[in-house]
Amino acid sequence: MKADLDAHLERERLEGLLVVGPAKHNPSMAYFTGPAHLGGGYLARRTGSEPRLYVFPMEREEAARTGLRSESLEWHAANKQAEGNPFETHAILLERILRDNEMTGRVLCCGITDAGFALETVSRLRTKIPSLELVGFPESRSPLNQARATKDETELTRIRQMGQRTIEVVGWVADFLTSQDVRDGLLVNRTGEVVRVGDVKRRINLWLAERGLENPEGTIFAIGHDAGVPHSVGRDDQPIPVGQPIVFDIFPCEGGGGYFYDLTRTWCLGHAPDEVEQVYQDVREAYRRGMDQVHEGVECRALQIATCEFFEERGHPTVLNTPETLEGYVHSLGHGLGLAVHEPPHFHPLQEPPDILTGGHVVTIEPGLYYPSRNLGVRLEDTVAVGPNGAEVLAPYPMDLVLPMRGNSRGQTKSRVQAKKAKPSKKRSG
Amino acid sequence: MKADLDAHLERERLEGLLVVGPAKHNPSMAYFTGPAHLGGGYLARRTGSEPRLYVFPMEREEAARTGLRSESLEWHAANKQAEGNPFETHAILLERILRDNEMTGRVLCCGITDAGFALETVSRLRTKIPSLELVGFPESRSPLNQARATKDETELTRIRQMGQRTIEVVGWVADFLTSQDVRDGLLVNRTGEVVRVGDVKRRINLWLAERGLENPEGTIFAIGHDAGVPHSVGRDDQPIPVGQPIVFDIFPCEGGGGYFYDLTRTWCLGHAPDEVEQVYQDVREAYRRGMDQVHEGVECRALQIATCEFFEERGHPTVLNTPETLEGYVHSLGHGLGLAVHEPPHFHPLQEPPDILTGGHVVTIEPGLYYPSRNLGVRLEDTVAVGPNGAEVLAPYPMDLVLPMRGNSRGQTKSRVQAKKAKPSKKRSG
Repeated sequence: MKADLDAHLERERLEGLLVVGPAKHNPSMAYFTGPAHLGGGYLARRTGSEPRLYVFPMEREEAARTGLRSESLEWHAANKQAEGNPFETHAILLERILRDNEMTGRVLCCGITDAGFALETVSRLRTKIPSLELVGFPESRSPLNQARATKDETELTRIRQMGQRTIEVVGWVADFLTSQDVRDGLLVNRTGEVVRVGDVKRRINLWLAERGLENPEGTIFAIGHDAGVPHSVGRDDQPIPVGQPIVFDIFPCEGGGGYFYDLTRTWCLGHAPDEVEQVYQDVREAYRRGMDQVHEGVECRALQIATCEFFEERGHPTVLNTPETLEGYVHSLGHGLGLAVHEPPHFHPLQEPPDILTGGHVVTIEPGLYYPSRNLGVRLEDTVAVGPNGAEVLAPYPMDLVLPMRGNSRGQTKSRVQAKKAKPSKKRSG
Repeated sequence: MKADLDAHLERERLEGLLVVGPAKHNPSMAYFTGPAHLGGGYLARRTGSEPRLYVFPMEREEAARTGLRSESLEWHAANKQAEGNPFETHAILLERILRDNEMTGRVLCCGITDAGFALETVSRLRTKIPSLELVGFPESRSPLNQARATKDETELTRIRQMGQRTIEVVGWVADFLTSQDVRDGLLVNRTGEVVRVGDVKRRINLWLAERGLENPEGTIFAIGHDAGVPHSVGRDDQPIPVGQPIVFDIFPCEGGGGYFYDLTRTWCLGHAPDEVEQVYQDVREAYRRGMDQVHEGVECRALQIATCEFFEERGHPTVLNTPETLEGYVHSLGHGLGLAVHEPPHFHPLQEPPDILTGGHVVTIEPGLYYPSRNLGVRLEDTVAVGPNGAEVLAPYPMDLVLPMRGNSRGQTKSRVQAKKAKPSKKRSG
């Protein structure tokens, strides 16, 4: 958490950190400013000192509202001195900021910006302050990200609230889907029109907006073959069938940019083919085992390796024995979550040194199995806080695979054929 | 437009361009991929050739849907070779991409990424390909941005549609505001609760979501003093008074990331103080003159200078004679708009060489006057396409300053006092 930031900076012998870019969609900046309408600027924080924010004069009042000590950038003077060259202008401004904050040695540089801008401005800055060593860190090792990885009580409360709002929307999606009618194995509305993935996603965005949330990264609503490709988001024009796996992965954030939540359910409407049911049971068991292993002091990669070993016992290929596999278990068991939807700690088995689960970590646990060639994929995901008693799911929601349909069924010719092939299971799972 | 990209690259003697980062909130990437759920990757385009997209294997199907030639990054092999170092892994991947595309000389580097990642990966890459000269361009001069600045028919159609949806929402906001009751000079709803800026903004987000739009940058709804600070977005907890200027600036984009629209109106609910009315008339006249001067072949900065001169004639300080001024006319007359809400062409008077208005440019025209010390600001903005007949406003909307209230007025004590001070004008403007 923020209180640990100096320790993380000192461990890497950093004089301070420099954050570039806007406040929105830029976790490194938003961590300090909170949700703010700042289109661009700089934040300097000398190790052991309070951060200072530098903004364009037009944004001075927005900057003041962050509660940080803020100053206006003297852009006009710098631009004149730079004879209109934007890179030189910013290098002049940055030189002053770094010197004012006594950060002329080893300094962490982070924040979202144009790659070309970073290259050109920094190369000019290095000639202005020869002692300056602006360094980047891998996302997983950045001292700022390591501080961000453990959440304080305020952050936990916000993520928990995000979770409550997210599961409300998940419930509405379940209600919407199961209240449709079925014709020829596809969902249709009361006027007989086919319901498509795009219709569901538009409603999701509406229900999120009603709760004041944003959905900057979109939603995964992937059916059949698409469900078998973990990052396939689904096609808007696709009709929604009964009896096929739907991977529904939702990861909205607070309005104005802020904390995320991340949850996945796999649903079969009406009934589930045996094949899907079997894969689901393996994922459900991996989820249970993963949750049981979440404890302070445990290496994240140990959970990933244990999950791979479990899936291999059940006959699935995994990234442990077949790193390049696109079938079976093809990703990590989870990831940290906060101002970014993916952040430390990470579960990758090759990570050195490994991340170790710590009180205050907020992570997802999300085992999945993917068989695109068999038109099937299953993933189950919850967001948990790591505490003295292990994992606390921040917003519990039922895990059933099969959602019974409550509308009318007509023209069942096609779905009966499918049902025959698939031997629908009547079991409720979860 | 895209057809001009090679000419722009050749003019700068560039072998090609390399785009980094995700597809969302990253116009350089989205220009090629369209709206796509790609969390990260690379796009290489040798000058004169088709672009190639490089993505992580999990995102291969999303990449295929872009219609671009795409390949999976061999991340596992590279990571092994790099002994787990993420910067080295990406440098190895980038070396292959650049060599495969015969881009080992002067290459444009752009796209949104972490500043530290850009620095570290590129410095490793330079040692791997000593001939490589990865260059950044200022946002205003980038050959890619210069190509993006002129829109083809498809892009114009999409921006026009964005405009139609935006003005629908603007109309709903006007209806919502004017249908409230007034008590003690403040808007209250039917149950007597005070209506606040946050209530308006939540409705805006809802109405945008209903139309499938996103609002990644938020909305400006700034009243009185806040209206006098151009980039102040307004405070959610602020009540909404009658008879004070409200600067309402809305700039949503297509769902999934895409083209923006940008429109500003200044409203006084019920009545306008004479002082606001006068400033409004000057801004309205500057808007008319600005629109009249939009023609192919005109230097953008000529419009900015003419606007400054007009405002100075009317007695307002401007950035032309007082570059640091925070009162009067304090910004540019407009900016290009497309996949980013601000993009070339630019109107800054010091820009060398100046941008020249060209057929296909889409720009905003947005004169404004700001007097925070007098609790007043006025801005009027429309988005226009530049064509043979000058400026075409892509989504015309009434420009009235005063929106007559249609609800009930009660407890007028306070507002009568205000009215006495302010001598409300009964005139309808526009």
